[in-house]
Amino acid sequence: MSGRFSVTYHVRSDAAGIEARARGIAVEQSVEMPLEAIGDEAVLTDIVGAVEAIDPVGDGVFAVRIGLATDTIASDAGQFMNMAFGNTSLQDDVVLWDVDMPALFPGPAQGLASLRTRLGVTARAFTGSALKPQGMAVGKLARLAERFARGGLDFIKDDHGLADQRYSPAAERIPAVAAAVARATRVTGHPTRYIPSLSGDLDSMRAQLRLARDCGLDCAMLAPMIAGFSTLARLRREFPDFVLFAHPALGGAARIAPALLIGKLFPAFGAGGAIFPSYGGRFGYSTETCRQLAENARSHDALPIPAGGMTLARTAEILDFYGPDTMLLIGGNLLMARERIAEEAERFARAVADHPYG
Amino acid sequence: MSGRFSVTYHVRSDAAGIEARARGIAVEQSVEMPLEAIGDEAVLTDIVGAVEAIDPVGDGVFAVRIGLATDTIASDAGQFMNMAFGNTSLQDDVVLWDVDMPALFPGPAQGLASLRTRLGVTARAFTGSALKPQGMAVGKLARLAERFARGGLDFIKDDHGLADQRYSPAAERIPAVAAAVARATRVTGHPTRYIPSLSGDLDSMRAQLRLARDCGLDCAMLAPMIAGFSTLARLRREFPDFVLFAHPALGGAARIAPALLIGKLFPAFGAGGAIFPSYGGRFGYSTETCRQLAENARSHDALPIPAGGMTLARTAEILDFYGPDTMLLIGGNLLMARERIAEEAERFARAVADHPYG
Repeated sequence: MSGRFSVTYHVRSDAAGIEARARGIAVEQSVEMPLEAIGDEAVLTDIVGAVEAIDPVGDGVFAVRIGLATDTIASDAGQFMNMAFGNTSLQDDVVLWDVDMPALFPGPAQGLASLRTRLGVTARAFTGSALKPQGMAVGKLARLAERFARGGLDFIKDDHGLADQRYSPAAERIPAVAAAVARATRVTGHPTRYIPSLSGDLDSMRAQLRLARDCGLDCAMLAPMIAGFSTLARLRREFPDFVLFAHPALGGAARIAPALLIGKLFPAFGAGGAIFPSYGGRFGYSTETCRQLAENARSHDALPIPAGGMTLARTAEILDFYGPDTMLLIGGNLLMARERIAEEAERFARAVADHPYG
Repeated sequence: MSGRFSVTYHVRSDAAGIEARARGIAVEQSVEMPLEAIGDEAVLTDIVGAVEAIDPVGDGVFAVRIGLATDTIASDAGQFMNMAFGNTSLQDDVVLWDVDMPALFPGPAQGLASLRTRLGVTARAFTGSALKPQGMAVGKLARLAERFARGGLDFIKDDHGLADQRYSPAAERIPAVAAAVARATRVTGHPTRYIPSLSGDLDSMRAQLRLARDCGLDCAMLAPMIAGFSTLARLRREFPDFVLFAHPALGGAARIAPALLIGKLFPAFGAGGAIFPSYGGRFGYSTETCRQLAENARSHDALPIPAGGMTLARTAEILDFYGPDTMLLIGGNLLMARERIAEEAERFARAVADHPYG
């Protein structure tokens, strides 16, 4: 008899229909066929999903907990997503709400604790900004990075739109920005990290990570919903010295609770930092979602990184909400300073350093 | 000045706000920063998204067409999805509705036309069934496949839940099922194809495809939303002799129109067959969605494959609706026949062969 892991779905249903609907999901997410056509006793006992609990959560929605066989996952992150929500994602009365992660997925190789050590930042939140707009030549991106770094920021990441475009090919961008940031850190004495954005397939990402490593970098970013879950897990195994940051691109389209997808699954598969659209920015996540997402990430040793319309003016409020185990990522708002970017970055870094953490 | 490709979003908005909202999406999906902070004229001209049209489609929804710079895609399928819907997916007033595909993505290496030639099936629809339940040992799966093939079906696919589990490892399952189907085809004279399901990361899938090729197979299946879009595109390039079937797992969770995602994008990136949940089964797609999805797939030389609760009793209705350029995939309903599976498969094959296509 194989072990089980529990998956919780939020299901819209009337009270009379919920038991049958729950059994339907348990079958869909395991054997996907009529039980009466199964002749193999072991399959019925060990593989068919089991409804473990059904609880009303209000407004005609029920929390349905289903035990799935751990053997079905075959230790693969993509297959895990397939078993947890593959076909049921196609039925729009169901949201994938939570998962008791099986021990198969060890979390990030390098996460929050590692970032505190590497940056020498103990008690405060981290600061970060983004290289954009895409379309700029490599030289301009490098100069922008240098000015951010001269301002003393902890992290400078590629905009997630930066891929391997002809106007800033990865093979030129990564060394140029790494060198620019290194020049700045020799002046400031602060070990600012550049986070290049990985793109393409597994082989392209490997090549970009090897190049990054050759340039002395130890951080990189990818979007798991685009790259594939197994790609993230594989890169975690092959580059255990890197902190991998997960970008949420294409992740909001899913009927998967953000606190689960971004806060728990991405870290479980290997992300040491999880970027997400914070409440109060350009996106619609609630404060409760953001709080839960950040807690989930921290409990997996991953750094929660609220973003998406953060401003310097909101620094105190954001830090009061998220506390010191976070990175404040301010992109467009810093870039508004144009010629005064290094000074603005410095003001940002100081505000985060001087904040009275509760 | 770089070329543009058009992306159409359906946006919930009031009439007064739609122009500003459309401009917001155009910025989010290109430079993702305030335009007034951009000093580079070429970026403003060539890279920033342009609102091309706004048309009301009723019920407080507008069709917003935005021209994005083709250069931003860098010829990568994943980056294409990132530019088309990466961040905007996180805003729940927007659905990715349609895309005028740029010529960068050539479609399947082997598609519908190739399937007609390989199977020697000219004027009728194709037949297929699925190996399940998962949890059965390799020998049982192989015997099931042989019985399906003895019934004269065109395709026998792995259930999409079959990955690389200990109870039926890919390295044993693929050769065993291939041999079983080959035995049957020597008896029937009909070139039934086995479609193994690929799992894991790019390297695992490559190994499984090489094994499949060594076993004389020329078809395989993967779930692009789980594997990653660039993985599909890469496998298309590396295995141009294979027909790659796209499974929709995890695809329904997205706020991306199914006719676009499954019918157009998966084929554009390399799928020669597109499995989707048909109207009238266990899933909620409308007849209009199914019709449009099937048309999109065919126009990319991909075979539309309605599935998800099809039954033998519905054969005539389904074939009247989809016509001959389709595969009728009946899984669980055939398996109900248990000991009489070969006979039921034969009845199914004959019903599809004898159908009066209009």
